[in-house]
This record gives sequence, structure tokens and C-alpha cells, in this order.
Amino acid sequence: MPDTARILTLLTDFGLRDYFVAAMKGVILGINPALRLVDISHSVPPHDIASGAFTLGHAYSCFPAGTIHLAVVDPGVGTARKAIAVHAGGQYFVAPDNGLLSWVLQREEDIVIHEITADHYFRKPVSSTFHGRDIFAPIAGWISREIQLHQFGPRLEKAVQIPIPAPKRVRDALIQGTVLAVDQFGNLITNLMPEDLPVFSPGQPGACKVLAAQKEITSFRRTYGEGQPGEIFLVPGSTGHLEIVLRNGSAASELKIGPGAAIGVVLS
Amino acid sequence: MPDTARILTLLTDFGLRDYFVAAMKGVILGINPALRLVDISHSVPPHDIASGAFTLGHAYSCFPAGTIHLAVVDPGVGTARKAIAVHAGGQYFVAPDNGLLSWVLQREEDIVIHEITADHYFRKPVSSTFHGRDIFAPIAGWISREIQLHQFGPRLEKAVQIPIPAPKRVRDALIQGTVLAVDQFGNLITNLMPEDLPVFSPGQPGACKVLAAQKEITSFRRTYGEGQPGEIFLVPGSTGHLEIVLRNGSAASELKIGPGAAIGVVLS
Amino acid sequence: MPDTARILTLLTDFGLRDYFVAAMKGVILGINPALRLVDISHSVPPHDIASGAFTLGHAYSCFPAGTIHLAVVDPGVGTARKAIAVHAGGQYFVAPDNGLLSWVLQREEDIVIHEITADHYFRKPVSSTFHGRDIFAPIAGWISREIQLHQFGPRLEKAVQIPIPAPKRVRDALIQGTVLAVDQFGNLITNLMPEDLPVFSPGQPGACKVLAAQKEITSFRRTYGEGQPGEIFLVPGSTGHLEIVLRNGSAASELKIGPGAAIGVVLS
Repeated sequence: MPDTARILTLLTDFGLRDYFVAAMKGVILGINPALRLVDISHSVPPHDIASGAFTLGHAYSCFPAGTIHLAVVDPGVGTARKAIAVHAGGQYFVAPDNGLLSWVLQREEDIVIHEITADHYFRKPVSSTFHGRDIFAPIAGWISREIQLHQFGPRLEKAVQIPIPAPKRVRDALIQGTVLAVDQFGNLITNLMPEDLPVFSPGQPGACKVLAAQKEITSFRRTYGEGQPGEIFLVPGSTGHLEIVLRNGSAASELKIGPGAAIGVVLS
Repeated sequence: MPDTARILTLLTDFGLRDYFVAAMKGVILGINPALRLVDISHSVPPHDIASGAFTLGHAYSCFPAGTIHLAVVDPGVGTARKAIAVHAGGQYFVAPDNGLLSWVLQREEDIVIHEITADHYFRKPVSSTFHGRDIFAPIAGWISREIQLHQFGPRLEKAVQIPIPAPKRVRDALIQGTVLAVDQFGNLITNLMPEDLPVFSPGQPGACKVLAAQKEITSFRRTYGEGQPGEIFLVPGSTGHLEIVLRNGSAASELKIGPGAAIGVVLS
Repeated sequence: MPDTARILTLLTDFGLRDYFVAAMKGVILGINPALRLVDISHSVPPHDIASGAFTLGHAYSCFPAGTIHLAVVDPGVGTARKAIAVHAGGQYFVAPDNGLLSWVLQREEDIVIHEITADHYFRKPVSSTFHGRDIFAPIAGWISREIQLHQFGPRLEKAVQIPIPAPKRVRDALIQGTVLAVDQFGNLITNLMPEDLPVFSPGQPGACKVLAAQKEITSFRRTYGEGQPGEIFLVPGSTGHLEIVLRNGSAASELKIGPGAAIGVVLS
């Protein structure tokens, strides 16, 4: 009997309008029709590897052990970039080797990476423009059928990673951070953690202010629903990072900043 | 063997771009990997409880008995609003207690409502900004594992409901209605029923006209495909309510009205 | 035991905001709760039968034998157009008879078409505005329960097809093609095949140029990732057709053309 509880997730920048995502799902279900397919997102901005890596990196750890994550944001499709299959954190990942797994690789230990070269597992003929359907989807499907990673190709020492900036204490009273991502509500997800700001540490209160887009933010809340209308404030977000938010609005639009923008924390 | 036929639906205003929906699904499948997950919608306009309530209220009754509906449109996340688990119409509902279940509660009898307080069922630590992942998703998952509602917390007499306006006969020959919702085609779904207008009652023909946005509508059809190009007319919609539609276009854009707009029916 | 591996796909122009798609899924799962539901797309442009036919026509063949495809782009809902159930290519299709299956019917042989008239399989009452929920969804569900097509209604000789234009050799050195579709990246999918252009035939090199929107294209690549920034070029797409693409951009926006636009190929 097929294992009806095995889960396979998909993350791409293919959108939901075209036949791309369905083609991949068809190929996967042709290999293992009992799989549970779950979409993480197909609305990663086109070719935005950093955004895809962030989204995958905050979703995968909610899934049970053994889950297979298929991620395709692949501007280099058909070029020399490698394809990889990875075991990390008790889960499996199939992706182009272009940094899309950066958040996963940064967070996990005991990582096993294999290049995908065994083309007898591929769908034939392999389109030079759609490895998602012809290479990545079948490999993900075969993992669910218990094919071992070493059967797909040689082990690699490491995979391509894009840098994930950490907050820097540039002076005793100044921390330099950055915006990592913007969610669809316009909340600015920073690389700052609650423990970086005394105001969020129980028993260690201390004044501080946050600078973003030349604005001074001195309001700190526990939830989105607090604060005054029009108020910009910081809140501990669900990713673990601090977020800059606007009550009932988009902080990104209001401050006109996005991923990569500098954030300053002035302690006193 | 897990019950592979148990269904859990999701409705949120989280959109499909971020990791939010996937995180909830991962948590649910971690509790019961055999569940069938079905998205109702994740495109409820942000924080629009009335719109989410309408969408859920017209989808749930199509699902088989025992289906679990997880609904999170939750502008008050982390504040004093309650979380509830409800049994009604042979189905289960998990949601914030903010009116999101209004259509369900208005339509069903024999309703059992429990507050959700038993935090040993929650995902830990509970984020103050994402109860969808840490409270609502696990509770929905545990319902599918046969945990009884009373185990989640105390019974409540009633839940928060937002008013659903009924048509009013203000004079013998005048009925006052309103627009309940606009669908993505721009059709205006009113609170009027076919039986409110003699023209839709077989054997009881009678003249009437409908007033919307200062326009007189005197055309009544059975389907969207009838009518002349550019014609605005009324049609019995699939929710049971009458809809104001524009042949091959958006009545909402043409009339520049939306939810809450007044509709008059003049009988003669 | 239910067959947990049976797959049913859905393609509509209903979007993901309203309750429409969920209502269809609820009805289907009420008939067969063990089905695996896979969305092909619900973002077909409203009433655009040609676009829906193209998307379905390039997704269905990736699915395993026995898959049931439910397709509803139905501007004529409730009018005289027929509803059909089709067996072709080892798979099943349920759709309005308006051309939505054109790509499937053109590609397959041994096609069996039945009109759907047996209303005891319908959901009652049948809304005149939502046959997707009340007719097409239940029929698709019953196919998965092994009801034979002839039980739904009389056999038809043929179904409505919309013409799919083939490239024409208008002179020895001139081929006339057209744009079939635009994907969400703005790539222009033409009806030209690699074998129409000597430049893509190994061993048969030969000069040629392609004319689109008064622009001469003389660059031919194997993948999207090749080419210079700002370069417009042709690439063999994953549908098998040649695509006109812009490196890291939208060829459709750049050339201001879309489906139906003329493409010329000048051989020399």
C-alpha cells in the first residue's frame, strides 16, 4: 500500500496562471500518486532567489520529518548551474544550486548534499527551458519512492549560499540591521531579534529608538492590533525577527523602503 | 490506519505570496498527515471579516459531514478577542471570535461553541502575531484526531456575530435591500431573494423595477449569458440571492457601488 | 477501501477570491472523499476559452492514466450549449462543449464524447448560473466512482473545437506563424516549432530571421538564461513551440503584442 501520509511541498516563481505548476504536479503524481502535495508559494517574485529562500526558510520547519520540499526559482535554467538534492533537518530538498536553500542550510546541521546527474531519473526529452517539470519534479517524486540521494549523483561538499546579513553592533550604543523581506501586508521583516532590543527583554528594560528611512521609531508593541491608527511601531514577528509595521496599513509603502534597507538601533 | 477521507478547509486573508498558509498546513499535517486539505480562499481582503464570513458561509455547506473548517481573518490577533471551536450543521469550525462565522451561525441550528483555552494543544512558543499557525491550526488538527470540543475549553452561550441585513418592506410597494458582496467578475450579490420579486415567481408575474446607484433596472434574466451587450440586469445567483450583473462586464465598476450600497425594489 | 490514488484536476476562470472553486471541491469530495484534487489554474482570463484550452492542453498529458480533468470556462452557462464528458488519451474530461477541449481533441485519437443529460447525477436544485458546482463537479466525481460515460447521456460524433492555427509556408522562403499565448513572464508562445527554423535543426544550419511587431529577430538561443540584457531572442519552449523572449523581461510588453499577432519567418 502506498504511504498516503508522505508530503511533498512546492515553491516556485511560476505563478498560478500558466500550466507550469500543474505540469510538475502531474509528473510527480505519475511517479507516486499517493503523495500529499502542498503549495508553499508560487508567487515568489520572478527570479527573486533571495525572496524564495526566505519564504522556504520560514515554512519548511513547520512540516513533519520526511517531508520533501521541491523549490524552483531558476533564472539559470539550462545553464551550467547544478541541480541538487539535499537532506537536512530530517527533511529533503530538491532545487537548483543557486542559493535558494540558503536559509535552510544556515539553520541546519548534518547536511548531506548530492548533485543531480543521473539522467535516467529525468523525464524525457528534457526541455532546456523547464527543468522544474523534467528534472526537479521527477527527482522529488523518486525521493518519495525511497531512492537514496547518492543514487542521483556525486556528493558535494557545499552548496551555493547567498549571504544572510546579521545585525552588527557598530558602536556600544548603535546596532546596524537591515530589512530582510516585506510580507504582503507591507510589514518590514528585519534581521533584528527581540533580544537585540532591551525593550523586548523582560527584566532588562532600557530606552532605545529605531531609525528606518530617516524616521525615528520609539513605539514597541506585542501585537499588530495594538498601537494608534497611523502609528509605526516594532513588533516581534512570527519568524522570530522584529518587524516594522503600520497599524492597519503598509509600513513598506509608508516608509518607501524594502529588502536591503538599512535599519539603525540607538541604545541609551 | 489514518482516515484518509477526512477533510480540512482553510480560509484566510494571508494571501498566497508569503509562508503563512504553508506554515499552518505544515503544523496541521504534523498532527494528522492523512488529512485532505482544501483551500476555500486566502484572498479575503486584509482584515475584512464580513467578506470572509460571506465566502465561508457559501462554501461550507457543499462539504461532507465531519469536515473541519479553519478560518483566520484576525485583525485582533494577540488581543483580548477569544478563539472558538464550533460544531454546527454536522461540521466543525475553528476561528477567532470576531464575527467570521456569522453566516454559518445564522444558517444553522443546534450550535455548540467552545472557547479555546487549553494551551497544551497549542504550538509552542505561541507567537503573539500568528495565532493561525500556533493556536488555530493545531486545534483544527486535533479535532481531526477526535479530540472533543469540550477538551479545548469552556462552553460559550454565543459567539460574536456581525449583522446580516435582511430586505425590508418599507412600504407596500417598496422593498429596501442592500449589496452583500461583489464577486471577482464584478457581479453585485444583493440580499434580495428571487421570491422578493414577483417577476421571478412562476405564476405570479408582476411588474417591478430595481433601483441601484440611481439607475433603474427593469431587465430580469435567468443566466449571465442572456441579455444584450452593455445591459445591466438581475439574475438569480448561485448563492440563492439575486445578483445585479453587466453582460460580459463588471456591474460593480459600471455602477460604482459595492458592499453596503442600498438597493430599492419598486413593485407595481 | 477507496482508491486514494485517483486524481482529479480543476481548471476554471473563477479566480481564487470567491467561494466558487471551494464549492466545486466540496461537492466532488462529497461524492468521493478519497480523490486527490490538483488545481491546474483558476486564473484563466474571464471567459477566455482559447486561453483555458491552451493551458489545459499543455498540462493534461503530464498526468497519469485515469486522471479526471474538470474544466469550466463557461460564458454560456445556462444557455443552449451542451455539457460533455470525454475519454481521450487514457484520461477523462468534463467541460462545457464550447471549444475548451480543443487542444486535447486535436492531439488525441480514439476519442469518445458523451453529452451530459442524465440529471439524476446533478446536484439539486441546479442553479442556472453555476453549472460548475451543480453539473460538472458531480459528473467528474461520479466518473471517479466508476460510472461509465454512456450513463451520463448519448454519444456525440464530435465536440465544438476552436481553430488552432498551424504555421503556413506562404512562399519558398517565408513562413507565416502566429502567437498562441503569453505566459506570466511575458514570453510569447508561437505556433512555430523548432523544426520550422533551420537554425534549430542540428546538421541543417541556415540563416533566417523572424519578424514580430515590425522587429527583426536574428538571435536564437537554447535557454532563457543566455543572451544579452535587453536582447530579444527565440528559444524552444517547454510546450514544444518556439517562444519569443526578452532576457529578464517581458517580450509581450516590449513588443506590445499578444495572442493572435502575426509572426513571419524569412529563410535564406
